[in-house]
Amino acid sequence: MLSEFEIIDAIVAGLGDRAAGEWITLGPGDDAAVIAASPGLSQVASIDTLLPDVHFPIAAPAQLIGYRSLMVSFSDLAAMGAIPRYCLVSLSMDKSQAARDSVWVETLAQGMAAAAKELGVYVCGGNLSRGPLNIVVSVHGEIEPGRPLLRSTGRPGQSIYVTGPLGAAAACVRTGQMMPVEPEALTPLQSAYYRPQARFDLSSLLTSAVGGLDISDGLAQDLGHLCRASGCGAALDSAALPVASEAQLHDALFGGDDYELLLVSSTPLEGAYRIGILTSETGLRLDGEPLIEQGFDHFCDGTRTA
Amino acid sequence: MLSEFEIIDAIVAGLGDRAAGEWITLGPGDDAAVIAASPGLSQVASIDTLLPDVHFPIAAPAQLIGYRSLMVSFSDLAAMGAIPRYCLVSLSMDKSQAARDSVWVETLAQGMAAAAKELGVYVCGGNLSRGPLNIVVSVHGEIEPGRPLLRSTGRPGQSIYVTGPLGAAAACVRTGQMMPVEPEALTPLQSAYYRPQARFDLSSLLTSAVGGLDISDGLAQDLGHLCRASGCGAALDSAALPVASEAQLHDALFGGDDYELLLVSSTPLEGAYRIGILTSETGLRLDGEPLIEQGFDHFCDGTRTA
Repeated sequence: MLSEFEIIDAIVAGLGDRAAGEWITLGPGDDAAVIAASPGLSQVASIDTLLPDVHFPIAAPAQLIGYRSLMVSFSDLAAMGAIPRYCLVSLSMDKSQAARDSVWVETLAQGMAAAAKELGVYVCGGNLSRGPLNIVVSVHGEIEPGRPLLRSTGRPGQSIYVTGPLGAAAACVRTGQMMPVEPEALTPLQSAYYRPQARFDLSSLLTSAVGGLDISDGLAQDLGHLCRASGCGAALDSAALPVASEAQLHDALFGGDDYELLLVSSTPLEGAYRIGILTSETGLRLDGEPLIEQGFDHFCDGTRTA
Repeated sequence: MLSEFEIIDAIVAGLGDRAAGEWITLGPGDDAAVIAASPGLSQVASIDTLLPDVHFPIAAPAQLIGYRSLMVSFSDLAAMGAIPRYCLVSLSMDKSQAARDSVWVETLAQGMAAAAKELGVYVCGGNLSRGPLNIVVSVHGEIEPGRPLLRSTGRPGQSIYVTGPLGAAAACVRTGQMMPVEPEALTPLQSAYYRPQARFDLSSLLTSAVGGLDISDGLAQDLGHLCRASGCGAALDSAALPVASEAQLHDALFGGDDYELLLVSSTPLEGAYRIGILTSETGLRLDGEPLIEQGFDHFCDGTRTA
């Protein structure tokens, strides 16, 4: 049986050079991490929980679980227009996982390190406790004060954009491709699910947008969030929706796990897909018909109408 | 059955004026929170998980669970000498808790708000998912660069101090006083367990100390952490140990959950208890005899020798 401290050592080994560097003044090992702040910038912070068989298949390779956990958590910072800097990870594992060996947890950390490297961030602190498997990632970045991309700044007449094709991750789930999976030989749909890309590569687009969020719960539900926060409705054009290859319109509307950004703007956003317009009439419409705001609800498993 | 969004509304209602204010530019409701940073200061960050029947009795009043969760998490920032600013909370709950009503979760949030008010901090973001009960708190503060109180800066010859009597929370557990409990009529031992105080009131002491950490796993184990990080040992004097009223020496040495600070210093620390000295010989000694570094290990439940 590995001790708590041996497991922590395996995690830090898996993180490698992603545990500290650059703006991380003090990494793992003390009561808290210390991070240098950039003069004149504000801090941006969010937290996410990832649960087995809700947010990833329990039997998936640990490397993919680690990669996906970090990337989807950081997506919330991309959706604010922030610069990502660091994260903390709190991991609960039960004895059976811990007793097996340290390979699982070290591989999980290697997957997190791979995502951290791509994002240019560090995993500078964490916590380990024994309990049902549960991965919590708090993500932190910086932004110019007054520049965050909000959900509440949409207004009727603004155009609605998405930053890429939707539905591939949902199609992966629907077609039963989540398992088995080989990290080195992912199909395109598996890649969409296990290797989502937080969109930190869109800074010029974000400068022109007036509001937005990331599409994690499905386009219809996330657009509903924006509309409620902005006090308006939306009219979508199905022909304009970029549906991912091998996905269906239903996947793109309701699937979730896309992590593309949903943006609203009064001026054209070059390189993004214009899919509709915000309306003064509340509620969502698709091709003129009411659109049921179906999406993932952790407690209802159900369907909501906006 | 409450929806995810109704539960979130109940949490935000329970937080009241602790969800945003002062340096919180943007509180709950968007993809991430935005926090103004103080010019010239570094960020300090830590994360903790609290699990039912490990870190609190599942049947305890939600108000006390919320209070304790926040206070013990912020203790890590006190141990760095930081100024506490804000936290994020990720809550997993199962359907049975969610289905009951929103009272439990709103009361939990009220308990968190009470601790946040005492600390002068905000709970400006969070996450809710369905799973085994699990409370994760990431805590954030600020500090002058170069001023954190580390575990690795102890040197032989420095005196060892603790900032208050130890063992009361452990005595609460040992004597079976954790339940039943009435939030408005806590016994002294219950108060130690359910209403620990993160020691942010010691800034003058901390200026003189050269290293330290908070005592969460028990004095012996936490002193062991400091000694290993500093490459030295320690000799303790049992007669000098401040044992809390109704507690025993064993509670004070091995009990944990004290959240007093353990400090080392070359100059006297007025108002703290001097309990021993760091030694060049590694390992811990009590009154000249080897001290087994027994304490809480999430995976072994066992005893370790330093």
